[in-house]
Amino acid sequence: MNIKFTDGLVPAIIQDYENGEVLMLAYMNEESLKDYRNQNDMVLQQKKKKLWNKGETSGHYQYVKKIYYDCDEDTILIKVIQVGAACHTGNRTCFYREITI
Amino acid sequence: MNIKFTDGLVPAIIQDYENGEVLMLAYMNEESLKDYRNQNDMVLQQKKKKLWNKGETSGHYQYVKKIYYDCDEDTILIKVIQVGAACHTGNRTCFYREITI
Repeated sequence: MNIKFTDGLVPAIIQDYENGEVLMLAYMNEESLKDYRNQNDMVLQQKKKKLWNKGETSGHYQYVKKIYYDCDEDTILIKVIQVGAACHTGNRTCFYREITI
Repeated sequence: MNIKFTDGLVPAIIQDYENGEVLMLAYMNEESLKDYRNQNDMVLQQKKKKLWNKGETSGHYQYVKKIYYDCDEDTILIKVIQVGAACHTGNRTCFYREITI
């Protein structure tokens, strides 16, 4: 495994471990990926380039259960136990709006 | 809705409509997003900067059922009916390898 970081970051899809709901797309650096691997109960700390501890500000935590990486080794999938809302808007998922097709 | 494209592309999480499995992370341009909205049964055509018609080369199609966008309007979630493998390796999902934590 040789995860490819672009400008130091790799996109990480965050999915609800229990019901499969896609919660958000985050961006992780190498350090935060190592943290996840070394410690199971970590909260997500990064979105885009702004470091950010979800639980600290919102009280809504995400506990990492499983981590996968894709065929190209340039995207991560993290399955989490979601406590409270994943989205800063208060919605459970960031994808709470549908585009009509 | 004002979807933000970076270098002309927006990341699109592709999820199985039927079982919730995350299949891949693709990148769409404005044109391909319009195509999806105008036509329900479209195959995914783009990953990264390389245009690509999945079905044409592999016979494995993805039919768009639902499209969502996130709070920041910079990520798309597409729920598809997956026919055959989503991954070019022949695996159903690109996330077929787990990272031990």
